[in-house]
Amino acid sequence: MTIDRYEDFRAIAQNCDLDAVVLVPGPNFHRLFDKNFSTSERPLAVVIPKKGVPAAVVPNLEMDSFKLVNFEGAVFDWYDHVGYQGAFDQLATHMKLGRIGVEGQEMRVFVHHALQQAFPGLEIVDSEREISLLRICKSAPEIAAIEKAISITEEALSASISQLQAGLGEVEIEQIIIKALFDCGAEGFAFYPIVAAGDNSARPHAKARADYMIKAGDSLLIDIGVRWGSLCSDITRTFFLEQCSDEQSAAYETVKAANQAGHDATRPGATAHDVDDAVMKVLEAADFSGRLASKTGHGLGRAVHEAPYIVRGNPQVLEPGMVFTNEPGLYKAEAFGIRIEDDVLVTEDGKRILTTFSRELTIIG
Amino acid sequence: MTIDRYEDFRAIAQNCDLDAVVLVPGPNFHRLFDKNFSTSERPLAVVIPKKGVPAAVVPNLEMDSFKLVNFEGAVFDWYDHVGYQGAFDQLATHMKLGRIGVEGQEMRVFVHHALQQAFPGLEIVDSEREISLLRICKSAPEIAAIEKAISITEEALSASISQLQAGLGEVEIEQIIIKALFDCGAEGFAFYPIVAAGDNSARPHAKARADYMIKAGDSLLIDIGVRWGSLCSDITRTFFLEQCSDEQSAAYETVKAANQAGHDATRPGATAHDVDDAVMKVLEAADFSGRLASKTGHGLGRAVHEAPYIVRGNPQVLEPGMVFTNEPGLYKAEAFGIRIEDDVLVTEDGKRILTTFSRELTIIG
Repeated sequence: MTIDRYEDFRAIAQNCDLDAVVLVPGPNFHRLFDKNFSTSERPLAVVIPKKGVPAAVVPNLEMDSFKLVNFEGAVFDWYDHVGYQGAFDQLATHMKLGRIGVEGQEMRVFVHHALQQAFPGLEIVDSEREISLLRICKSAPEIAAIEKAISITEEALSASISQLQAGLGEVEIEQIIIKALFDCGAEGFAFYPIVAAGDNSARPHAKARADYMIKAGDSLLIDIGVRWGSLCSDITRTFFLEQCSDEQSAAYETVKAANQAGHDATRPGATAHDVDDAVMKVLEAADFSGRLASKTGHGLGRAVHEAPYIVRGNPQVLEPGMVFTNEPGLYKAEAFGIRIEDDVLVTEDGKRILTTFSRELTIIG
Repeated sequence: MTIDRYEDFRAIAQNCDLDAVVLVPGPNFHRLFDKNFSTSERPLAVVIPKKGVPAAVVPNLEMDSFKLVNFEGAVFDWYDHVGYQGAFDQLATHMKLGRIGVEGQEMRVFVHHALQQAFPGLEIVDSEREISLLRICKSAPEIAAIEKAISITEEALSASISQLQAGLGEVEIEQIIIKALFDCGAEGFAFYPIVAAGDNSARPHAKARADYMIKAGDSLLIDIGVRWGSLCSDITRTFFLEQCSDEQSAAYETVKAANQAGHDATRPGATAHDVDDAVMKVLEAADFSGRLASKTGHGLGRAVHEAPYIVRGNPQVLEPGMVFTNEPGLYKAEAFGIRIEDDVLVTEDGKRILTTFSRELTIIG
């Protein structure tokens, strides 16, 4: 008897009373087929029914690539000049669907609508949570790939930092880091780098400015991650240029203590809530007027943000093999921002902090 | 009287009988606010009603960045530990919506569902076509940014080609090209580079293989594009390593002639159909057993694929300021693929081919 590679998805369909789970290219698709597609305006969807043979809608353009997934079921391909709706309509002739689960964070509305048009009365449920749970615990090869992505990122960060000095623009620094990432072996970005100094670092997802030159006393927040073997790294360190004020230093030490509290709270059996709660209590107790904008972290794998989300109220129990970020921050609007972000693996007897870059307050330039 | 920057969107709402247009971060958002957000699991949405003041749902984490858009209306922010549904529910208390238009290619299902839950009975229309028409004709600064993105890409391609020789892996070549792109001033990828040799080049959107070393007689397809000033380039050239068979050469010349036919058909007043038809007729007439998988091209701007889609059956009339790709290809499964892709601007008196890289058959290595 051969293994049914769709077994986990069929179980979700069974448990959630769905006729099928419908996947689009993205992290779940990639984990299932070891192959991905960047589909832009061309929909590609795989239907995994509760029982029986799956089916797919595929742009004809991608058919030669799709052959690499060794798909077992019916494929309805469509040509650019004909459009995709007919392929979805053929799918509806091929199988009956009344209620399906989809990846709410991945599927776009035009695919949702194509499905609704093909299957009148179709109920579309957001099964993101159930589907993403399938990849919440990482396999040994996945952990190895994350570790490789982290080592590339840390090596690039070290190589970049030694080149930084007052007078460089945020965008210039970004370019230095990007080249270092690919020099060190990155296979792609996990996300576009965040390089923000001074007041811009108070925006957690700031965009680098071409016209801002870093100067003495600036905080410099660098948040970078790469892909290696399709898995992601995600690391933040905050440096100070030439000098650091007492206020900045106090905020830094608070963030560092919060990060440490998060590490200390991480073990199998603890919940995502417990870790965020430990982190937030340190931040909340500190004499700092800045804003606490963000949860402690997010899972890390084939998507750079995925389950488990490390946030108060999330009852998710931590288990060995889960990988997530621990990234507390303090952000003082118009002044500075500080974030320290590690990637952490839950192990049988506690955790292993996968990032090794120093978390000590560091003056550069 | 001040200019209403939402005027175009209100006109769509009026014409399509919508109560509002709802935008999420992406190309339309970027063009409107000159600012973008990468929102991952955190929804951000702006509601532009047919009449009256707009409103927004914003992750609290992004509030300092969101201030940069100088938003005029009510903002409902939400914290990670509380979740986003409450902010959508507050929005529903604030304004009545029965029928809205969204960007079907941009909005993901979880935002669609949050809106439906907040506004019971809400009808959500895919207004992608109407909304994307707002940016189909490029302004002079947008054209200048596309030209800059193209010149960066072509410079990087020239610098890379001189380094290529038999024995290099596809992934190695990809890394050479990526470094060259950022060395030449890329601000980001328009899309991840496609580098495919031999049989892999027969897959139009192939992924580079680490274990395939290019060898004499291989076709080598390189499809790359960068962002500069938020606008995109998108260029493909196909080279041959050391030698080229008669079959490859004949296919290459056919693709080149098809590309030329597309250029010849491009002028104001012609339709997108006319251009694809001219290209396809050349490919169809050729004595070549390969597959014609793709339309001729797509619009190019803040998104790397956007309107106008250059495909048979599309009645879109070409107008000055439109920019699109002309990228015919012939793909022989398990053997080779050839694509030549230019970026073209429609002008008052015809067109200007923005890409300048030679289209002549070129042997390298």
